[in-house]
Amino acid sequence: MLFDALFVPKTLRDAVGGVGWVQAMLDAEAALARAQAAAGVIPPSAANRIAACCDAADFDVEQIGEEGRRVANPAEPLVRRLRERAGDAGEWAHHGATSQDIVDTAMMLVAKRARTLILAEMDGVAAACAKLADDHRRTAMAARTLLQQAVPTTFGLKAAGWLVGVVETRNRLDQVELAAQLGGAAGTLASLGDKGVAVLRLFAAELDLAEPPLPWHANRVRVGELAAALELVAGACGKIALDVTLLAQSEVGELSPPAGGSTAMAHKRNPATAVVAVAAARQVAPRIDLLGELERAAGAWQAEWATISHALGYAGGAAAATRETLEGLEVDAERMRTNMQPVVAAQPAASDVFVDRALEWYGR
Amino acid sequence: MLFDALFVPKTLRDAVGGVGWVQAMLDAEAALARAQAAAGVIPPSAANRIAACCDAADFDVEQIGEEGRRVANPAEPLVRRLRERAGDAGEWAHHGATSQDIVDTAMMLVAKRARTLILAEMDGVAAACAKLADDHRRTAMAARTLLQQAVPTTFGLKAAGWLVGVVETRNRLDQVELAAQLGGAAGTLASLGDKGVAVLRLFAAELDLAEPPLPWHANRVRVGELAAALELVAGACGKIALDVTLLAQSEVGELSPPAGGSTAMAHKRNPATAVVAVAAARQVAPRIDLLGELERAAGAWQAEWATISHALGYAGGAAAATRETLEGLEVDAERMRTNMQPVVAAQPAASDVFVDRALEWYGR
Amino acid sequence: MLFDALFVPKTLRDAVGGVGWVQAMLDAEAALARAQAAAGVIPPSAANRIAACCDAADFDVEQIGEEGRRVANPAEPLVRRLRERAGDAGEWAHHGATSQDIVDTAMMLVAKRARTLILAEMDGVAAACAKLADDHRRTAMAARTLLQQAVPTTFGLKAAGWLVGVVETRNRLDQVELAAQLGGAAGTLASLGDKGVAVLRLFAAELDLAEPPLPWHANRVRVGELAAALELVAGACGKIALDVTLLAQSEVGELSPPAGGSTAMAHKRNPATAVVAVAAARQVAPRIDLLGELERAAGAWQAEWATISHALGYAGGAAAATRETLEGLEVDAERMRTNMQPVVAAQPAASDVFVDRALEWYGR
Amino acid sequence: MLFDALFVPKTLRDAVGGVGWVQAMLDAEAALARAQAAAGVIPPSAANRIAACCDAADFDVEQIGEEGRRVANPAEPLVRRLRERAGDAGEWAHHGATSQDIVDTAMMLVAKRARTLILAEMDGVAAACAKLADDHRRTAMAARTLLQQAVPTTFGLKAAGWLVGVVETRNRLDQVELAAQLGGAAGTLASLGDKGVAVLRLFAAELDLAEPPLPWHANRVRVGELAAALELVAGACGKIALDVTLLAQSEVGELSPPAGGSTAMAHKRNPATAVVAVAAARQVAPRIDLLGELERAAGAWQAEWATISHALGYAGGAAAATRETLEGLEVDAERMRTNMQPVVAAQPAASDVFVDRALEWYGR
Repeated sequence: MLFDALFVPKTLRDAVGGVGWVQAMLDAEAALARAQAAAGVIPPSAANRIAACCDAADFDVEQIGEEGRRVANPAEPLVRRLRERAGDAGEWAHHGATSQDIVDTAMMLVAKRARTLILAEMDGVAAACAKLADDHRRTAMAARTLLQQAVPTTFGLKAAGWLVGVVETRNRLDQVELAAQLGGAAGTLASLGDKGVAVLRLFAAELDLAEPPLPWHANRVRVGELAAALELVAGACGKIALDVTLLAQSEVGELSPPAGGSTAMAHKRNPATAVVAVAAARQVAPRIDLLGELERAAGAWQAEWATISHALGYAGGAAAATRETLEGLEVDAERMRTNMQPVVAAQPAASDVFVDRALEWYGR
Repeated sequence: MLFDALFVPKTLRDAVGGVGWVQAMLDAEAALARAQAAAGVIPPSAANRIAACCDAADFDVEQIGEEGRRVANPAEPLVRRLRERAGDAGEWAHHGATSQDIVDTAMMLVAKRARTLILAEMDGVAAACAKLADDHRRTAMAARTLLQQAVPTTFGLKAAGWLVGVVETRNRLDQVELAAQLGGAAGTLASLGDKGVAVLRLFAAELDLAEPPLPWHANRVRVGELAAALELVAGACGKIALDVTLLAQSEVGELSPPAGGSTAMAHKRNPATAVVAVAAARQVAPRIDLLGELERAAGAWQAEWATISHALGYAGGAAAATRETLEGLEVDAERMRTNMQPVVAAQPAASDVFVDRALEWYGR
Repeated sequence: MLFDALFVPKTLRDAVGGVGWVQAMLDAEAALARAQAAAGVIPPSAANRIAACCDAADFDVEQIGEEGRRVANPAEPLVRRLRERAGDAGEWAHHGATSQDIVDTAMMLVAKRARTLILAEMDGVAAACAKLADDHRRTAMAARTLLQQAVPTTFGLKAAGWLVGVVETRNRLDQVELAAQLGGAAGTLASLGDKGVAVLRLFAAELDLAEPPLPWHANRVRVGELAAALELVAGACGKIALDVTLLAQSEVGELSPPAGGSTAMAHKRNPATAVVAVAAARQVAPRIDLLGELERAAGAWQAEWATISHALGYAGGAAAATRETLEGLEVDAERMRTNMQPVVAAQPAASDVFVDRALEWYGR
Repeated sequence: MLFDALFVPKTLRDAVGGVGWVQAMLDAEAALARAQAAAGVIPPSAANRIAACCDAADFDVEQIGEEGRRVANPAEPLVRRLRERAGDAGEWAHHGATSQDIVDTAMMLVAKRARTLILAEMDGVAAACAKLADDHRRTAMAARTLLQQAVPTTFGLKAAGWLVGVVETRNRLDQVELAAQLGGAAGTLASLGDKGVAVLRLFAAELDLAEPPLPWHANRVRVGELAAALELVAGACGKIALDVTLLAQSEVGELSPPAGGSTAMAHKRNPATAVVAVAAARQVAPRIDLLGELERAAGAWQAEWATISHALGYAGGAAAATRETLEGLEVDAERMRTNMQPVVAAQPAASDVFVDRALEWYGR
């Protein structure tokens, strides 16, 4: 889509887009078949055959979506097609599973793949902050509180403050437990008899996802945690980008971020990547409703899919644009110095002990 | 995308999708050229040439999005390409306008086109409610408050209540003023000299959009009103769909909405379209930030584009799924009667005076 | 509460606070009794006795709240006490009504009383904007887009833009229909027999509230509309206050809003009222859930009471602080002129035709 | 306030209310004075005198709030009064600190005190869930997915699922780092010279709060984490309460929560505490804006105070009402058995292996 292309890097768009989701659902089906073969629940040859059919390129994403409308989930049409493709082995596909097992597991896989990309961007943001903090530990400038000049700070200390927020939120996202989902029709795994727990363990291991204490069809805490972590990641990036736009104001001019042109004014140097970062960040406000009905919610669960996909994409988009902003940033130390009002410059100067603390904390 | 295909009807997806937006931006450029030709600002031949180049099929949506990242809006790359295509006339394309003029006007056109589709769905929902209200004005059933049986009501009165909410929100959406945007570089229209107001009027008329009192680059009230109206529309539909899922519960069984199958349980009849309606409705919670900086916001404005597109699509998706639910609804009047607890059935029965009031109010 | 005292003017705090609510519930009970006496449903003497007992000063707000926890609404303990106070007439108090009739009607009364205060503040904001627009129609300054100087505008045109947003949102709030609620146990008014509609009409007239087509226990559209209108009002005010903080920056200095001191820095002049306005505005984001269950929601309805009270208070607080900000604003026209970069000042100047349009539109 | 009294237990209301906040600000001032005395920055006798004046009972909460409006924070009027009360020692009160140091630290203290109460409620909820899980590990009932009967589960497994969500969110809240704030005028601690870090450490230790790597005036991640954790806690409780209201429906009748009466219907047993829990939970959706300007936000920070106070109160209110609901719950095992449709009862039964897993996980 037009705006996804503007706000979200291509690799991340692919990871959270329709093909990414279909592949993740197929990966879940393949892993389920392999896990059940390993547990002796289905024939190994059937598992191999199923797994061989699990390439998203062979499926029509839009058609799956449209047919999914009739059953309120995208797994049913996908499984139907997978079974057709797998021929005799098809009867063993999706064995003992319910649609939510596949969709939830796919959501975790999509999140895992997107998270890797987002964390890489956040690491880039953190590295850029750390370099600025170190390089500018003695670059004096006015601190502004309530947008008024207050006392002297350093640009290094400002960047150190950004760094802490970036690392805190990056770690929060990294710590969200992404777990496999396998509960069968209603979270009891009854259809797998006494092999349920073994299959769950193998299934999770196949996908390198955590093994949850219970199926979590109706316990959406981890989805809520993921959503919250993405909002924090976006917020930490948006904070940096906002500061950059403020320090790049015509009347301040202390920072020059990478600029884009204007269609109307040749002289303008718009802080485009910083604005993209702020706008992407402001779009990350996912609402996950934990109040779903009984063993499977009639609406709240289904509302998660697009919401989480969007939040992953735009949080990563905010991180990428913030990294680009910082990597291309020009710092005008002279302007920082001369902008300080005399009454401000006369206050006690910031030492760089806090910069050291932040860098040490970051290095841990 | 997978989930857009599941939640949003095809015509509406097209209206709010990338091609729909690019066409709307091109329509704005064509109308601008024609308006300026009519006002004597640019040569009529140039306007004709520009207008002839304004077919979205000739533009690469994803490329425009990706290039838009460098300038924080999609109009700049689009205008660049349009000028190339228009040859000598290209210099007159986008004359006196700023990117926001085109993007905002396009957003209004996208909203206008999508609104037509949404209102048609809402009219279908209202008609279905009215029919149910009239048909079942004497079909007694238990009213439930706090999910406990309370006193008798009729299914007709329940449907009349749905009807009122649907019509109220439909009208609210219909009344949102969608206005052209034309302010030039910073909302002063200075580059058009004393022809600014005339061009604004012609431009709005070309597009059948309202003429605003002032350019509204920095006044996002109408966007906020649109967002709020979409949330209300979705809510009125979601309310109906929620009621249907509750009355379709296995233990209640008074309503049978169109059903989808389960991948795990052959006996189940899931209320799929009702669930799609609830889920679509719950995803319509657009946040429009009116607190944008000075003459053009550095982030808040840019965050509107995808937000409004999504809200239009999912509000319409909620309406469509609710209409499908009601049109395929089976009402079990006998079950309604026998479900009533004796203590409830013994209470005074609802008359149908309120049904008449609602139908009369609807007919106005 | 500490923060309500900081953000919300005293009269408005009182209107939306506990005493204001208890009085509104009592006003609803008194009006109900009078309406039923007029309709011949209850004895006039009983109505008089009941009405005479409806003074909030005689009730313990905190106790009503705490006892309300046991029944999930504050009307039940209030009615119990009212009946005790009314002696023999007590049996006629709350006749044929349900708790929601009283709480919803009280919410409408609270909203009506608070709205009068909010609209008065908004009128003050509008008048201040109009004066600034007129006084400064020729005061040239730099327009800033994406926080970069763009082309010249005038401070009058900026104020005219504020004015339009203020009037649009003020009118939106003014147009929200506040209606009486009377439906009896489950919205059928069955317990009043064929007098239901007559009593509803008299009840609404007693309170100067609109008469709705149907009882709206389960149709929360008007509450959603009220919430949306309050968010828009707050947003239009917050936009102004944000602009003021930006133009009051140490490096810009074009506006001097009323200032508060700092506990740490004697030299600082913090734009305190503007910050209060922004902060109040940002707290107005009421979420009204239209998806309530069947004839009375089990949670969504009960979540409205504090939400609407808070939104009324803080929207009004934002308006009041914005009015104070504008009424105490000092404009430095010389600084506006000299701040303009040469490349900006060389662009075509804004005419004041748009200021005229806005003032004319305002005067209508 | 009326609704706080309905939704929030008294001890928690006190903890997050005006007196709680004023006491927390005073505790911060007292701790600051003691820390500075210990570090040799101010005279020990002055610290003692200051600390002796830090009793909220001696301060007028409403007056502090109203005066705080003039400076956009409540610390300035509080400090002014504290200095008056402390006589000669007053000049040493608030030494080297800025208002935000005191307000942020107070927010952390309020959160810490409220968290203790909330965690105790959550422990009660968890214990009730665990008991139900253990007692009913063999109590068969229908699992419902999309509100349709699916396959058999046990009430024990359902309660085990609740338990996991409660413990996960309880732990998430418990793990949020609540840290002291001390940065001086703009986060540099420059006014304390080389004693800044030592005072920060002593200050944090005095209050039993964490010592942050840097002052976090402009890094609001921990506030965002707190808000997110509270929303999750509320959601986990609301999920339980919603399930209870659904299983207590007249037509289901498998659970009987503590009931409240109706003002209109003598026969009704409303699931009042469950509804209070759902309604309280739905009101916990705090929005913390991480995008604050430069060294101290002009609006976003000030919007946190009431938001966090409200979220603490209502999350705790949701937990308390859920605990009350579960502790008074009657389980009708016979109804659970007979409600199962034959086609459901004929499916494989849930084993209790997952209940064991959940209880073991809980016991760790």
